[in-house]
Amino acid sequence: MSVIIDGKEVSAKVQENVKAEIKNCMIRPSVAVIQVGDNPASNSYISNKEKVCGAVGIYFRLYKFDDGTPELTIINKIKELNNDEYVNGIMVQLPLPPQYNEKRLLNTISNAKDVDGLTDINTGRFINGKKTLIPCTALAVMRVLEEYGIDVAGKDVVIVGRSRLVGRPLATLMLNNNATVTTCHSATTNLKEHTKRADILVVATGVPKLITEDMVKDGAVVIDVGINRVDGKLCGDVDFAKVEKKASYITPVPGGIGPMTVAMLLENILLCYNAKNSK
Amino acid sequence: MSVIIDGKEVSAKVQENVKAEIKNCMIRPSVAVIQVGDNPASNSYISNKEKVCGAVGIYFRLYKFDDGTPELTIINKIKELNNDEYVNGIMVQLPLPPQYNEKRLLNTISNAKDVDGLTDINTGRFINGKKTLIPCTALAVMRVLEEYGIDVAGKDVVIVGRSRLVGRPLATLMLNNNATVTTCHSATTNLKEHTKRADILVVATGVPKLITEDMVKDGAVVIDVGINRVDGKLCGDVDFAKVEKKASYITPVPGGIGPMTVAMLLENILLCYNAKNSK
Repeated sequence: MSVIIDGKEVSAKVQENVKAEIKNCMIRPSVAVIQVGDNPASNSYISNKEKVCGAVGIYFRLYKFDDGTPELTIINKIKELNNDEYVNGIMVQLPLPPQYNEKRLLNTISNAKDVDGLTDINTGRFINGKKTLIPCTALAVMRVLEEYGIDVAGKDVVIVGRSRLVGRPLATLMLNNNATVTTCHSATTNLKEHTKRADILVVATGVPKLITEDMVKDGAVVIDVGINRVDGKLCGDVDFAKVEKKASYITPVPGGIGPMTVAMLLENILLCYNAKNSK
Repeated sequence: MSVIIDGKEVSAKVQENVKAEIKNCMIRPSVAVIQVGDNPASNSYISNKEKVCGAVGIYFRLYKFDDGTPELTIINKIKELNNDEYVNGIMVQLPLPPQYNEKRLLNTISNAKDVDGLTDINTGRFINGKKTLIPCTALAVMRVLEEYGIDVAGKDVVIVGRSRLVGRPLATLMLNNNATVTTCHSATTNLKEHTKRADILVVATGVPKLITEDMVKDGAVVIDVGINRVDGKLCGDVDFAKVEKKASYITPVPGGIGPMTVAMLLENILLCYNAKNSK
């Protein structure tokens, strides 16, 4: 039997800390979210962010544009928010409808307000070892491991998924913390050979129940970043019911990395706020 | 017996192409190298770059500063070169004496002239999948593999070394080309287990003869990025004489990745030159 990592509990702890830090601020930290279109999953993520921000005292603004709004209108809104001294963090909810230039929109965000850590310059600073804003999901994985006292140094970490939002920044964080890191993906020919030798297995593919029990080493730590909806129910990229019996620690879906990602967003907003106010 | 990859030959081919492309340019492409101090290895690398640039028709300028020169003097020289329309590429020879802020100096270089691909913004663009300047040694490894018809897609690539100049950018290039990538380093506890399963093994550690024959799979491709001087002789990070018997392809030192790195520098200079002149 494994320890089920309680992402909600760790998230609640982070939220309490953020709330305590904000409590005495004369001007509340504030985040602006840009949404284009009406993707139901995005609606749900955004309403969750709004709820959590509200609970800790972060002022939340949503700018929702119809799919079809000229890109320049959105660019101009981002520029306006860049110049608004009462906005500390800006995020563009992904995915965007396909006709929009995602990189262009993301790179319009001021580096100092880029709470998702996705502008080119923040990415480069991160890779080059400078203190900067880092994508929330990658931070979330590192934080739960830390909170559960799981040291990654010298461990064989296998990451399944090479996205710019999760797999790649996480590989960098793991390397920076002295893990030996393997990144697998859809073109990996012998996935099981790799997952099977992982001390710590992180899965971020969006393929429901990709990881079955025969793919996991006894006693491995299993971190499931996937959030999939199958037959109206949420599930991860790991076959939780069975893998749970082999893992030493495992994150559930929902209630694992999901709530931790929102918690890391709060910390990133606070980083932006504090950087501005310490100037 | 393995095929010994002839880095000199591939480099000569690249040089011929660059030379042919430059031949009819009215204004010659030009590169400026900043050297601080008098490190003998740096002197040797720089004089080699000067020779190769001269041979293909790239105008080469060296700005050599005494160790102890105020950092601001060097910063101002870089800014002057940024504004000099006849300078296409700028590089700061590394390593710098320890009292200098390497990141600050590198980030003073204009992104459009950053032939080593080391500014934060070029690093971020690279990671985020944009066309940009990429560190030469990582390009050199990919190019020799390509020239020898070695496809990396679906292969198990193990990189030993996690430097920002070689290991990390190479891992990104390998991932982009569909390899399954493991990065090992000084904190890896079971190095041999990883190197032993590599289809393609790339070593960039600076530890002479770190990789012995028992650490290599039969038929593996072995790429040695190390350049070490032992008892007055150059050697790599791989015990060439013995590993050669097991590998299917192997790069020698000298004559492998070294000359290819200079060749990739020429191509990067040409990229900068062409980008400027196509504006």
